[in-house]
This record gives sequence, structure tokens and C-alpha cells, in this order.
Amino acid sequence: MHAAAFIQDLAVIMLVAGMVTIIFHRMKQPVVLGYILAGLILGPHTPPFSMVQDNHTIEILAELGIVFLMFSLGLEFSLRKLRAVGATAVVAALVEIVVMVWLGYEIGTYFGWKPMDAIFLGAMLAISSTTIIVKALDELNMKHERFAQMIFGVLIVEDILGIGIIALLSGIAATGHVSTLDAAITISNLTLFMVVALVLGIILVPKLLEYVASFKRDEMLLITILGLCFGFCLLVIKLDYSVALGAFMIGAIMAESRRIRAIERLIMPIRDMFSAIFFVAIGLMLDPAIIMQHAKPVMVVILVIIFGKIFACTLGAMAAGNDGRTSLRVGMGLSQIGEFSFIIASLGLTLGVTSSFLYPIAVAASVITTLTTPYLIKAADPLSGILARNMPSKISQFFRLYSDWLASNDHAPDSDKAILAGIYRKLLLQVFVNLCMVSALFLAAAWVVNVYLVGLPSPMRDIMWQQAVIWGSTLLLATPFLIAAFRKLQSLGLLLADHTTQGMTGNDCGRVQRFIAKTVNVLAGAGMILLILALGHSIMPPLDVWVIVLLVVAGLITLLWRWFVVLHYRMQIALIETLNQEKEDH
Amino acid sequence: MHAAAFIQDLAVIMLVAGMVTIIFHRMKQPVVLGYILAGLILGPHTPPFSMVQDNHTIEILAELGIVFLMFSLGLEFSLRKLRAVGATAVVAALVEIVVMVWLGYEIGTYFGWKPMDAIFLGAMLAISSTTIIVKALDELNMKHERFAQMIFGVLIVEDILGIGIIALLSGIAATGHVSTLDAAITISNLTLFMVVALVLGIILVPKLLEYVASFKRDEMLLITILGLCFGFCLLVIKLDYSVALGAFMIGAIMAESRRIRAIERLIMPIRDMFSAIFFVAIGLMLDPAIIMQHAKPVMVVILVIIFGKIFACTLGAMAAGNDGRTSLRVGMGLSQIGEFSFIIASLGLTLGVTSSFLYPIAVAASVITTLTTPYLIKAADPLSGILARNMPSKISQFFRLYSDWLASNDHAPDSDKAILAGIYRKLLLQVFVNLCMVSALFLAAAWVVNVYLVGLPSPMRDIMWQQAVIWGSTLLLATPFLIAAFRKLQSLGLLLADHTTQGMTGNDCGRVQRFIAKTVNVLAGAGMILLILALGHSIMPPLDVWVIVLLVVAGLITLLWRWFVVLHYRMQIALIETLNQEKEDH
Repeated sequence: MHAAAFIQDLAVIMLVAGMVTIIFHRMKQPVVLGYILAGLILGPHTPPFSMVQDNHTIEILAELGIVFLMFSLGLEFSLRKLRAVGATAVVAALVEIVVMVWLGYEIGTYFGWKPMDAIFLGAMLAISSTTIIVKALDELNMKHERFAQMIFGVLIVEDILGIGIIALLSGIAATGHVSTLDAAITISNLTLFMVVALVLGIILVPKLLEYVASFKRDEMLLITILGLCFGFCLLVIKLDYSVALGAFMIGAIMAESRRIRAIERLIMPIRDMFSAIFFVAIGLMLDPAIIMQHAKPVMVVILVIIFGKIFACTLGAMAAGNDGRTSLRVGMGLSQIGEFSFIIASLGLTLGVTSSFLYPIAVAASVITTLTTPYLIKAADPLSGILARNMPSKISQFFRLYSDWLASNDHAPDSDKAILAGIYRKLLLQVFVNLCMVSALFLAAAWVVNVYLVGLPSPMRDIMWQQAVIWGSTLLLATPFLIAAFRKLQSLGLLLADHTTQGMTGNDCGRVQRFIAKTVNVLAGAGMILLILALGHSIMPPLDVWVIVLLVVAGLITLLWRWFVVLHYRMQIALIETLNQEKEDH
Repeated sequence: MHAAAFIQDLAVIMLVAGMVTIIFHRMKQPVVLGYILAGLILGPHTPPFSMVQDNHTIEILAELGIVFLMFSLGLEFSLRKLRAVGATAVVAALVEIVVMVWLGYEIGTYFGWKPMDAIFLGAMLAISSTTIIVKALDELNMKHERFAQMIFGVLIVEDILGIGIIALLSGIAATGHVSTLDAAITISNLTLFMVVALVLGIILVPKLLEYVASFKRDEMLLITILGLCFGFCLLVIKLDYSVALGAFMIGAIMAESRRIRAIERLIMPIRDMFSAIFFVAIGLMLDPAIIMQHAKPVMVVILVIIFGKIFACTLGAMAAGNDGRTSLRVGMGLSQIGEFSFIIASLGLTLGVTSSFLYPIAVAASVITTLTTPYLIKAADPLSGILARNMPSKISQFFRLYSDWLASNDHAPDSDKAILAGIYRKLLLQVFVNLCMVSALFLAAAWVVNVYLVGLPSPMRDIMWQQAVIWGSTLLLATPFLIAAFRKLQSLGLLLADHTTQGMTGNDCGRVQRFIAKTVNVLAGAGMILLILALGHSIMPPLDVWVIVLLVVAGLITLLWRWFVVLHYRMQIALIETLNQEKEDH
């Protein structure tokens, strides 16, 4: 029986993992550490001997562990939560990530590692571990305190930025060097992909899940969820992004479904099974000899994680307007690394761009900082007292002035200014999303022309009418989004005109208003035409054909104008309804 | 990324399976057929092309599908249900299985297949499909009718007998021929293993699960469940039984846990995921060309399944005392094959003893008979009316007389005779279980001596004292069970004496009673000594050493007598408490 070896592996992994985690749970340590220790015991680098035979299959299952871990992180994430988090968490997370990536890169360079290792080390240190923090706060009974809410906000932003880091790293690994232009292209491609996938996903996926769930058969719902999850991961892999990004995004899309509770209930056991294998597989790869050999970097990395993160996150939290005590607690809570670092480390390994010692260093650092986390959280309060008493008055005065200044910039959420700012934000977001859809359509058309038409036999390829038809229909498809973007820009122009002329009276006022509104209109129209020309230039037909196509499209648009408006309006309604609907109860 | 191919496979499988099952569900056909069709579409034998790349990994996951399918069949099975089913279901199931195995074997021989193919075909036809029947009865809204209850009873017995068939087939495949002695040895070994595993399992496993569940962490409970499941499967594989047997038994053991609801909730999504892969993998292997090539056997097999099962099950149900209408409905409900047949077919393939055409024949027959099942159930009622009207009066009179005779043998459950029969049954069962434990101890000791001591360097091996110590301590360990068995036999003797002398009076009565009781005692003692000698003969030390060991053991037994009695009593209490405890609510 060829599967016997595999069942033996699973049996050994689950039995040892089960025993170790029960012991760890009794000792009030995170279960994750138990899994890693179980892997270490079972692995080939520790006595008695390697107890796992079919390493290849275990690695594949561990990869599924990443998929399900990121998928359920995505399920817990939601756009609504991101909106609620506010600017403070964004500031704190950005400060933390920038400081930690820089510190990690500097350490790597100091130890004479190759640049790619140093970059990956920086990325590994950037993001704290949701799993570990939630567990620690849970056990210390502090989940509902103010600083804990701030930590959760930072973690949500970190997840999103972490996804960006993973995409950036894949790009850097592919080109082999870091250039600002490449990074800008990677980030804008990623943003475009994420916006389009989220918009289309949120319009389509929750509806589909609702339809399947209406059959009231858990089995069918589960298979549909798994099909969408792996299908989206496959799409993302084909676009050369990492599977972690895909799993997280489809999770975030499904988080907008009304059936989110049912989805979580069905996915949890599967996630627990595969993530256990994932963490055990990490332990399997761990070679204590390599860690001993790199004892010095390991120590430095641990110290940098603890003190660097405390410093960066405290600073970030204070910059975001928190008082010193809360900020210190936030900083000390976030001072560890975890699952994201493992995923980044294994990304480096599978891309073949990092050295093999990086992974064990990350794991060793994660294990130690996981162990210190609860003690640091407990120490934050006394420490902030000591710091407050011993701080030079100049510094404490500066902080007081800073937070007073921040408070003075804050407006009550229902003040005129805040409402106006809200409307501006909303209009700009709508313009951005619509233009993203337009861009995606033209990029997809260019891809079709360059990949499919090039492959056709040459007499068919040469016919420029084919290109013309594709370009024309793309323009036709893009029209609803262009119309919507133009209308939002018009509204924006009127609002701006109104806003600028506040205080003016009479004829002057009307003239200035009309001038501003018209200028905005002209700029918007010109900008959108330029965008279309730039996006479509690679598939644009010759001028004479182009004019004909343009006339045909213009005719069709005139004919279908009402239908276009209604279609776009329906899509927008579907999106907003899904985002605002109530979730099913537990 | 080496796992990309695998994620692509999963994506394709889940997406196609999801779509096909939604269509099948809308068409009110079983989801299982949808999976098989999805596999057929994806497979290499149908256009456009093979859409699955990493066949090896999919096969391993399909093997996990068997584990989880059998495990959850075991969870739904329980000893309490088996007790409730009663003799009628046992009779019906036995008649069905014997008739169908014989018919299958005859078909195979008729088509000139080799004997092993014919035997496996017989086994494949023997057992009906729980999945299909439950689904069909559910959709016809007949789940709570009398004949449906009877069908469920037959299915439970079939599961147990199917497990026996799988074990027997493994034995037959290993020796290459069928001999009554081999079959008897296989069956008694299997029975011994099942009794000991069930007793020890039910004493230990629910307690362990209760302990882990007390931490209220689903993740730890799940990992423990999986560890026990795969661990037990591994043990079973090492003992050369099939993994299906192991998964079913550990499921049946866990079914006695108070946490059965939580276990089912956690395992269901995992089972659904892997069983979907299992059924899709069946479709992947399906080659329509082979089915066309064997069209004649396929047709014959289908006809034999439908008419043979209707005949055998109806006859069995009538023999068990049901009226004609109920019996026909039972027979027509059971006339299909399903998951058990696939497991038996894949057993034949992995053991390398059956021809490759057997699997597609089984799948084709299962697909067709699954489709006919709901129609047959609906046709049963009208058909029984027609039969009743047209039956020769001789035959219907015979049936009436037979069922009257059966009814006259039935006793009310609280009659003296029934109570007495219950006590006899209970005592005999306890004697049987205790003697099974004794046998298992001695067989394990013989295994230790023959496998481990033989491997030791020869000076250590030669020391007969080692054997003597092992033999002696085995006897010591076996003593509590021997004592218990002896005591139960004593009670049995007294009961028998009392029963036999009913109606006698005076001195005679007392003498006969004493004589019977004493005879039973002597026979019991002698039988048990013979059993020990027979079981331990391969590890028995030479006579002089043996006498010394015996004296030592006798001394220890005298010293530890009270402790032994208490220990055995406690184990018995633990077993009975677990079997009788209330299950946690949903």
C-alpha cells in the first residue's frame, strides 16, 4: 500500500504534535511553539532519527497550510474593519515597518550577507505575529483594553502592507535588484490588481456563496469555498504573485459574504489541520547545528526585534497621537515575529534567492520572541511609570505639545469640515476605482493581443481589423466606468467651485464658480483621453482604421447610453449593498 | 514554486466538482455522482485532455478520503445502535451478503475471469451504499418509515460484515487461495483484534478526548482526534489489516465519547474535502473505452445487483419476520452498490491481485444503480400490491404460517424467559471478552519473544530465564481476566444448575445442582488451563524452570489477589460507564 508511508507520517506528526501541544497548553505557552518543537523532535537533525519518510508530500501539505492560514487571516480581515481602524494605526504600522526593514537590512549588511539575504531579513522582521499576540492578550485577559484595540488596528494594516511586501519581494527576486521604478511599477500593478479583484470579487463571490448556501448543504458550500479559494490562488500564481497574496485576498472577499460565520465554521478544522502540518514542517527543517553556527546573528536579530520593535512601535503610536503609557504598551505587545516571517522566509527559499541559514534564524528568533511577548506586555505598565518619572521635562513637554497639536487638528466627526472631507474622500475613491477598472480592461486587452494574436498563424495575425475590433470593444466596455469617473469628477468640480467661492457674493461668485467647474471638466476629459491613449497605445490600430472604429464606438455609446448608466448603477449598488449588509448570526 | 502544480490540481478539481454538484443537486441527483462525473471530465480518457498533473499526490489525498469516509461511518456507527438493531437485521444482511458474494463469484467464473477477480467481484456486489440510500430516502421523505428503519439496521450490520470481508480478502490475497482453515484463522484473529481494540479503546480513548476537550480549544481536540485516528490506522496497517478497517474501528471507538457531537462537527468539513477528492479520483481513473469493451459484464453485473439484491434482501427481510410489503421495500431500497465497493476495488488494485477492468465495472455499475435507486423505492409499493394480488395462495399461506411461527417464538421483553436469556447472553459475552484479553496478552508475549528476542545477540537470546520471565509476567497480567472469566463461568454454572432442576424437589435437587455447578467449575478451570498452555506453548520455558515460574506467579497472585479484583472491577466499571453515558447535546 503506497500510502502507508504517508499515513505513518501523518500519524507520527499528529500524535507528537498533540502530546507536545497539550504539555505546552498546560505550561501556558502558545500551541504554535508546541508544533515547531514537535517538528524539531521528529526532524532529521535531532536524535533519535528522522521519523518522517515522505518529505515531499509533507511539504506540499505545508504549502496548503500557508494557503489556509492566509485565507483565514483574510476572513478575519474586512474592509469595514480597515475603515474603522483609522489613520493612527496606519501611521504606527508604517513607522514600524520602515524602521524594521531598514534595521534588518543593516544587520544583514553588517554580517556581510548578500544583498538579497539582507532585504529578506528586513522583510522578515517587519511584521508582528497576530497569532501570538491574540493568544498572549487572551491569556492576560487584556483583549478589551484600549492599547489592545490599537494593536489589533496596527496588525490589520500590517497584514495589508505585508501582502504588499511579499509582492514587492517577488518582483525584486525576479529582477535581481531594487530600483525605484521597478518598485513603483510593481506597487501600481499590485494596487490595480487588488482594486479590480476586490471590486469584481465583492460583486460576484458573496452572491454566488449566498446561492450555494441556499441549498443548505454544508458539503456543497465547502466545495464551492475551496474551489473559489484554490481557483483564485491559481489565478494569482499565473500572474506571478505569491499564493499567500491570493489566499488572503479571496479570504477578504469572502469576509464580505453574509455567510461568513458558516464559512469560518467549515474552514476552521481544515485550517487547523494544515497549519499544524505547516508549523511542524517548519520544525522539521530546523537544524540546531545551523542555529549554533549562526549564534551571533540570531542573538543580534532577537535583540533588534525586541528593542527595535518596542522603539519603532512606541514611536509610531505616539506619532499617531497616543499617550506615552498606551504607546509603550502597544510597542511592547508588537515586539515579536511569527507566521508572516516564516512565509517570507519560505518565499525566499522557493524563489531560490536567499541562503539556507535565513530560515532557521527566523524560526529561532520567532521562538524566543514569542516566549518573551507575555512578559514584555506585563512589564509595559511598570516601565512606563519609571520612564515617566525619569524623563527630562523638556522631552515630556515636547510630547505634550505634540499631542495637543494633533488634537487641535482633529474635528468632531459631525462638523461641517469633517462631513465635507468625507464627501471629497468618497468621490475621489470612486474616481480611483472606476479608473482602475478602465486600466484593467485595457491591460487585459493588450495581454490578449500580445499573447494570443501573436501566436496565431501570420496571415490571420496581420489583419489589423482584429486589433481594431479588440480596441473598439475594450473602449465600449470601459465606457460605463469612464462615464462614472467623469460624472464624479464633475461633482467634485462643482463642490470645489462652491467651496472656493465661499464668502464671495454676486456676479463674481457665479463667474468664478462656472470657471472652476468648467476647468475641472476640461481637465478630467483630457486626462481620461490621455489615459486611454496611453493604456491602449500598444494595441491601437492605424489612424484611418482608428477613426472608423472611434465613429462606430461613438455611435454605439449614443445608442446604449441609458443602458450603460443603468448597468453601472446596478454594479455600484450591488457592491455597496454587499459591503453594508448585516452578517448572519453565529 | 513546486506546489503550484498541486494547487492547480486542487483548484481544477474543486471548481469542476463544485459546478457539477450544483447542477446535480438542481437535478435532484446525488452529489457523489457529480464528483465522479467531474473526475471523468477532468480525466485523461475524455476530451479535451488530462487536466490533473500531480496524479501521485491526488491519489494519496484520495487514500485520505477513504480514511475519513470510513472514520465518519464509524462515528455514526455505535455499539448501542448495533444492540438496538436486533436479530432481524443480522439475518437479512447475512442472507444478502451470502447470496450476492455467490452470485458475483458465479458471474466472474462465467465470464472466464481468474478466481481472484471473481471473488473480489462477489465482495463488491455484497454491500449496499449508505450514502446513496440515506440521500434517496431523505429526498423521498421516507426516512422515518418502518422499512427505512429496517434498512438502516441492515446497513449497520453490513458495515461490520463489510469490514470482515475486507480483512478476509486481504488474507486471501496474501495466501493466494481460499481455504476454510485460513478463513477461520483470519476471522478469529480479526475478532480477537477487534474485541481487544474495542475494549481497550473504549476504556481509554473517550477519557483522553474528555480531558483534551476540557481545555475548550477546538484546535487541540482536532489534532488529538487526527493523531488517534492516523495512529490507530498505522497500528492496523502494521498488523496487515486494511486502513479502512482501522479508520472505521477508531471511529466506532470515538462514537462512545461524550464529545461525539464536537468530534463530528470538527471532522465533517475535513471528510467532505477529502471524500470529494476520493470520488473525483475514481472518476479520473474511469476510462469509457474500457467500460464499452466490457459492456456485457457491466450489463450483467447491473442486472444482478438490481434483481439479485431485491431478491436476496426481500427474502432476508421476510426470513427475519417482516411482512411482504415491508420486505419488498427493504429489498428495493438496498439494490445498489457504492463506496464500499470502490474501497474493495481499490484494495484489489493496491494489493495487485485483481485485473484493472474490475474497477471501472464497479464504478459503472454503481453509477447506474445509484440512478435507479429512487425509482425502485417509489416502485416498491405498487409492485407489492400487484404481487400480493397475483401470488398463488399456497405461497402466501406459507409466508403467513412462517411469520406466525416466528411470532410464537418471540417473548415479551420482560418475560421470565427473556430476562433469563439476557442474563445468559451477558455472562457469556463477559467470559468471551475476558478470554479475548487473555489470548491477546499471550499472543503479544509470543510476538515479543519471536520478533525481539530472536534479534538479540545469541548469548542473551539463549538465556531461557528471559522467556521464563516474559511467560510468568504475561500469566500474572492475564490473571485478573482469568479470575473474572472463571467467576462468570461459576455464576453460569449455578444458573444452569438452578434452571435444570426446576420442578425437582428435596435432596435430589440439591445433589443435582451441586453436581452441575461442580462440573461446570472443573470444566471451566480445565479449559482455561488448556487455553493458557496452548496460547503460550511457543514461549513456554523448560519444565523445571516452568515449575519455579509457576510457584512465583502463584505466590504473587496470592499476595495481589485483592488488588487484581479491584483493578478488574474498575476497568469493567469504566467500560460500562462509557458505553452508557449520555452524549453531549448539539
